[in-house]
Amino acid sequence: MSSDNTHSLQLRSLVRSEGELELSLVRVPVPVPAENEIVIRIEATPINPSDIGLLFGAADMATATYAENADGPVVTARIPERGMKSMQGRVNQSMPVGNEGAGTVIAAGASPAAQALLGKTVAALGGAMYAHYRCVPVEQCLLLPEGASAADGASSFVNPLTALGMVETMRREGHTALVHTVGASNLGQMLNRICQNEHIGLVNIVRSQEQEDLLRKNGAQYVCNSSTDNFMETLTDALAATGATIAFDAIGGGRLAGQILSAMEAAANRSAGEYSRYGSTTFKQVYIYGGLDMRPTEIVRDFGMAWSMGGWLLFPFLQKLGPERTEELKRRVAAELKTTFASRYTKVVSLQEALQEEAITAYGKRSTGEKYLINPWKAQPA
Amino acid sequence: MSSDNTHSLQLRSLVRSEGELELSLVRVPVPVPAENEIVIRIEATPINPSDIGLLFGAADMATATYAENADGPVVTARIPERGMKSMQGRVNQSMPVGNEGAGTVIAAGASPAAQALLGKTVAALGGAMYAHYRCVPVEQCLLLPEGASAADGASSFVNPLTALGMVETMRREGHTALVHTVGASNLGQMLNRICQNEHIGLVNIVRSQEQEDLLRKNGAQYVCNSSTDNFMETLTDALAATGATIAFDAIGGGRLAGQILSAMEAAANRSAGEYSRYGSTTFKQVYIYGGLDMRPTEIVRDFGMAWSMGGWLLFPFLQKLGPERTEELKRRVAAELKTTFASRYTKVVSLQEALQEEAITAYGKRSTGEKYLINPWKAQPA
Repeated sequence: MSSDNTHSLQLRSLVRSEGELELSLVRVPVPVPAENEIVIRIEATPINPSDIGLLFGAADMATATYAENADGPVVTARIPERGMKSMQGRVNQSMPVGNEGAGTVIAAGASPAAQALLGKTVAALGGAMYAHYRCVPVEQCLLLPEGASAADGASSFVNPLTALGMVETMRREGHTALVHTVGASNLGQMLNRICQNEHIGLVNIVRSQEQEDLLRKNGAQYVCNSSTDNFMETLTDALAATGATIAFDAIGGGRLAGQILSAMEAAANRSAGEYSRYGSTTFKQVYIYGGLDMRPTEIVRDFGMAWSMGGWLLFPFLQKLGPERTEELKRRVAAELKTTFASRYTKVVSLQEALQEEAITAYGKRSTGEKYLINPWKAQPA
Repeated sequence: MSSDNTHSLQLRSLVRSEGELELSLVRVPVPVPAENEIVIRIEATPINPSDIGLLFGAADMATATYAENADGPVVTARIPERGMKSMQGRVNQSMPVGNEGAGTVIAAGASPAAQALLGKTVAALGGAMYAHYRCVPVEQCLLLPEGASAADGASSFVNPLTALGMVETMRREGHTALVHTVGASNLGQMLNRICQNEHIGLVNIVRSQEQEDLLRKNGAQYVCNSSTDNFMETLTDALAATGATIAFDAIGGGRLAGQILSAMEAAANRSAGEYSRYGSTTFKQVYIYGGLDMRPTEIVRDFGMAWSMGGWLLFPFLQKLGPERTEELKRRVAAELKTTFASRYTKVVSLQEALQEEAITAYGKRSTGEKYLINPWKAQPA
């Protein structure tokens, strides 16, 4: 079954108390909109790292087994005992997945704002987007500009607002240039376009020559390849040249976050006067906003005392920013959807294909250049 | 030579470019005070962890060799190559040591404020206190109350102002209770007395049963021994009971700082409602203010996204606080010098004894209960 008039499919992630993850498609009623709501026929919804976190939980996907039921694939994987601690809050709750998506408004509540969107292509943020239909309040939608497809608008929220949020955070906290550790990602490329437009110093960290080439081709001035032997030197040079004292790190685990602080300190000390046993007085900030590397974060504290490392999350940041400024940022995203905020995907898959081994293995790597887009209405092979 | 009318001894730490540390006593002229300065005959000066940092630098003290020259002991130790990077700013500069000390004012400049201190017992902050005499501006001094000896006042600044600064920071950043990781240290005991007086929830972390017993005997309610098997449970219980969401950590290295964040998150989740994949919204802060464990800091990020870890340093904090509030804190220290802010020392040594193997091995451990006080005028054994 794909969908009929009253039922449709929704992708679910379930953590069982015995330490098992189950991913499957379940039948849910086609939603009926309340007064100020609309129903979107979801035609494009990206698999972001933040979605993968909810989708896989703490499961070890190397243990995944693949089966089928009447509605499609069923994936089962083991959750290590140490991983179950962080899963306590979601045990035995079948959870829908998918932060953002876009599609056609096929039903609308009675309010003028809802009615005005009927038939239009919109993007929305709000979870549960891996489904044929999603009902959301009008305020959570973004009307896409004329000529933009659902695929163009699928990633209108998470990456664009995160990239804009990094620049806002940099300014609000008194820094003038920034570092980003997944320079060649979709988000990283958006950030490069923003910083080039606004003449902001941006130090890109990448993990391969190919990623470096891509960014340089697109005009990036500072690109440091962490897989090279002279990474720390090139990073320190770039930090000294730009004066970047704030970094946004999506990796999280391993030594990189600490290495950035060390290189910032080395850059600050190039212009230091007298010796201070407590290190430079230059305040150095690293925000960890993702966890692509789930190992512990290891910090070699050779960068003095003027430092901070912490979590950064989009939604609390937008709350701090307030609704007016957030609205401004959203309007900017809509206006520059096909330029500054354009996304690229490796592959478009159906809901069923998203739960097949080939896809899970590919997007499960969370690696730059393996970005999947789900089109729940993509025709199934016979 | 101990001292004559024109010369005196000063303890020095020198890092040579070839990777060698040298500690010795050098002859310096007895200082002559400028208009608003006084000369203190230093009679008591503590060896704080922050002094040990400057004294030993990055040297491996296990390689220390001990010799003598005409003015006293000469200690030499090797600095590992990886340690020399952080020593670049001080190479080949013979540096005086000793953050704070106390003694009798034996000379004063012409200003009334300086003259008023002649013959009085004062404490002072300003470095270079491991010496027979130290000349400082009047503003850097604290007149000790009637009946307080130099030994009573030797530690009037670093520990008392740090303990008070922790409580100030807690309040300024919106927390209501705090954690301290070296609960039984001199500083920790001061903090316990402050928190008991002001009814502030304080979670003490200690490393032995003996330290736990000491704190409990002195009225501490929450003491968690990190060497026990159920440390994380007792810590989580104490955090849940006090609501402490800020910690001050003098250890720095290893897993403790991260464990505190994990336990704060577990405490927050005891009262959490719906599951959030990003962890609780309770903001958790750990400040690292010392480096008793010089290994890397290892953080297992199982505490969501609302967290921060960073450096905390007394002097920048006092600058943020401003001179008026700092003055208030200093007056409070003077008034409560023999109660709230009383210090205890394991041993009193001369300048010469401070550079002997026995002493260096003992205070070099930086362990709670091995606190040394230098009295530069202590009589030498014949």
